[in-house]
Amino acid sequence: MRNYTERALLTDLYEITMLQAYFLQRMDKTAVFELFVRHLPDQRNFLVCTGLAQVVDYLTGLYFDDDDLEWLRKSGKFDARFIESLRDFRFTGDMDAIPEGTVVFTDEPLLRIIAPLREAQFIESRVINLLHYQTVVASKAARSVIAAQGRTLVDFGLRRAHGAEAALLSARASYIAGFDSTATTLAAPLFDIPVSGTMAHSFVQVHDYETDAFSAFAHAFPDNATLLIDTYDTEAAAERVVRLAQWLREEEEIRIKAVRIDSGDLGAMALRVREILDGGGCPDIGIFVSGNLDEYAVQALVDQGAPIDGFGIGTRMNTSSDAPYLDCAYKLVQYAGRPRRKRSKGKAPWPGCKQVFRRIDANGIMEGDTVALQQELLPGTPLLRPVMRGGTVATPTPPLAEIRDYARAQIAALPERLRALTAALPYPVSVSDNLCELARQVDERQSEHAQEDRARWEQDAE
Amino acid sequence: MRNYTERALLTDLYEITMLQAYFLQRMDKTAVFELFVRHLPDQRNFLVCTGLAQVVDYLTGLYFDDDDLEWLRKSGKFDARFIESLRDFRFTGDMDAIPEGTVVFTDEPLLRIIAPLREAQFIESRVINLLHYQTVVASKAARSVIAAQGRTLVDFGLRRAHGAEAALLSARASYIAGFDSTATTLAAPLFDIPVSGTMAHSFVQVHDYETDAFSAFAHAFPDNATLLIDTYDTEAAAERVVRLAQWLREEEEIRIKAVRIDSGDLGAMALRVREILDGGGCPDIGIFVSGNLDEYAVQALVDQGAPIDGFGIGTRMNTSSDAPYLDCAYKLVQYAGRPRRKRSKGKAPWPGCKQVFRRIDANGIMEGDTVALQQELLPGTPLLRPVMRGGTVATPTPPLAEIRDYARAQIAALPERLRALTAALPYPVSVSDNLCELARQVDERQSEHAQEDRARWEQDAE
Repeated sequence: MRNYTERALLTDLYEITMLQAYFLQRMDKTAVFELFVRHLPDQRNFLVCTGLAQVVDYLTGLYFDDDDLEWLRKSGKFDARFIESLRDFRFTGDMDAIPEGTVVFTDEPLLRIIAPLREAQFIESRVINLLHYQTVVASKAARSVIAAQGRTLVDFGLRRAHGAEAALLSARASYIAGFDSTATTLAAPLFDIPVSGTMAHSFVQVHDYETDAFSAFAHAFPDNATLLIDTYDTEAAAERVVRLAQWLREEEEIRIKAVRIDSGDLGAMALRVREILDGGGCPDIGIFVSGNLDEYAVQALVDQGAPIDGFGIGTRMNTSSDAPYLDCAYKLVQYAGRPRRKRSKGKAPWPGCKQVFRRIDANGIMEGDTVALQQELLPGTPLLRPVMRGGTVATPTPPLAEIRDYARAQIAALPERLRALTAALPYPVSVSDNLCELARQVDERQSEHAQEDRARWEQDAE
Repeated sequence: MRNYTERALLTDLYEITMLQAYFLQRMDKTAVFELFVRHLPDQRNFLVCTGLAQVVDYLTGLYFDDDDLEWLRKSGKFDARFIESLRDFRFTGDMDAIPEGTVVFTDEPLLRIIAPLREAQFIESRVINLLHYQTVVASKAARSVIAAQGRTLVDFGLRRAHGAEAALLSARASYIAGFDSTATTLAAPLFDIPVSGTMAHSFVQVHDYETDAFSAFAHAFPDNATLLIDTYDTEAAAERVVRLAQWLREEEEIRIKAVRIDSGDLGAMALRVREILDGGGCPDIGIFVSGNLDEYAVQALVDQGAPIDGFGIGTRMNTSSDAPYLDCAYKLVQYAGRPRRKRSKGKAPWPGCKQVFRRIDANGIMEGDTVALQQELLPGTPLLRPVMRGGTVATPTPPLAEIRDYARAQIAALPERLRALTAALPYPVSVSDNLCELARQVDERQSEHAQEDRARWEQDAE
């Protein structure tokens, strides 16, 4: 059986019920859908768009296998001819998107699909699922990267990530946002992300003497052991490290790389441990901290000048605990050549195929974006680029290191106020006059249709 | 290649580095680890333990395949003999656990592993990952179930769940907690959960006339169509539904089952739509609502008497947005026959093999729990039961419907105050005198060891 993450049935049932209705109506003209974020959470001044590579994998690998078709038959919910038609279902459309690592804002289409209606509709659930989560994590992780001011950041989040895919995708998203490595081992073979890992408290506990635990670990990893020193008494453990390090250096040419503190007042304790290490002739042993950290804690520790070389950040980053989701949507903006939009209260998206133009000032800093019609030519750089054409890849995903470099440059180009951890004056995103005019026309025509719809009934009733 | 969710490398790197150190030291006596929750989030009065079935699947299927071993070799991080030893690595230990669907509280071991040190250690990351997330979701979902007072609840969360596994496991966890169905199709073949689905706004938008969209969908699903009525003007759409329903009933024996409202003031709009439907002779058409819902919104709508038959609840439930993680840990409590614990500040767990005894009053309501030593015999029912013995399943996972029934009975047995959505006086969980005494002894012995550790160095220094 296929990996369940690749199964076509990994979708909302309504995608399949709608497909059946379209099949029975023979409706399959070209549709255009765009994915965008409606509002930024209060705790975010910008987003880092990520997850496109996984969307491409999904679209190029999408088909209903025999298990999928068998379940559809057995469910008793669907028409037999419709189910049979799904055997040849593939994604054959076009995708344009804003490249991974780009800084983005509300109302900007992150991705546009142009495809036969059934294909463009069907992919909604999983496309959102893939793009939403990585963007949530990268946007959160970027804040820690800014706060850490160059100190090492390691993703520690597997255990409390929401499942396996969240753990792996947050390793990827946080690496793109500027983290240095992850503790999630499988992210190395899957995504070529550097991995790092040390020891747990249990390692110290199973040894009767803490020094024996430290010594055993240092012997097992003679050039890069990081020793966890807060199992019992952090200061006493630091003193043990000093004595052990001296012995190992002189007798066996073994070098202890760092210590890790995982509890207590991390700033005060790092200061005290630094004194003990330096006083004991170990200025080369680094201090790494972890435990319930997020960008706010990192900023506080950096601001107070705590002598910390690196941070392990897990749960709060990969659950994005202060803003665990984005208000995003994948909406139909055109069908059969005609721009459209819904008008639900407070949820009216912009109709038609759009482009985002970004203006950069003479110092390389972002000045403002305009969301416009695709065919408009406005000042600035268009952000959406071709990714797939006719169901095949038009622009391959760049190497991860390249995406990461690009994200770093993007974050560096943000107006300074948006890099704050607190809410800043929003980045200016305007909407072109032509797009406003199109929305007005679309609403006007929809009102006319609503009147005609009513008139038809009244005629029937007469 | 195996499904990545099954790969042994889906673990924190430190589990592997510790294993290498144990391998080189030849340390592999029996270890006991227990998983527990340290604190309840402010927004939770109880937890619903879930995820054990997936832990069992993980432990019974765990091995390093050739791809895993190949990566370990290529990484350059590990000893060749150690890597070779992993070829035969399996989980051969015992597991006791609190059954899925049980209501649980802080300090209670949800799961205990007794196994050779390396096995008991290695599984930590993924065992937490599996048990933590489902427990987070079931505990959140149970609150909506209480608030809905018997109204239908459907999991709508795939799109903003944190990845594919989160979507599937939250379908399972919310079903156990009392949800009626999920929109995530793949949860049906994987877990045998009922699925349901209707239509998106795009379905209405691609039709020029809203009535045509409704009619097409009703024809595609002649006995159970739910029509989405808030794409443009909810009241006008409700009137269209009335006229269409009348026509379809009389002419074609097609029955419209329900309407769905996804935006605006859901309570006021449900009232207005109910009037329109009833006034138009359609009292049998139900009203279903969705859009940014959680237990607080459900309770408010129920309290105001809104005529709502069912709720679609997604993002906020399956990201558990108000408390997206639990402060839980998997800790060594015994090694080589000796109880142990760490003593990091504010994080000292109870040592030794433990059991939880729950007392129930004459009315079947939970009175209080006591965490005690495993061999104590205290009043009440012991919660931890045998699940695996010697690496094989001792107690098979019950059918999902049975777990769901059990969870319902558990929630019904909660003291009334704990079913409130606001913080209540905590449920009483006490610790037995014998366990307190054991903790004292463990700390005392550890202090002696610390002194001996220091004395050894001082002797060496002389």
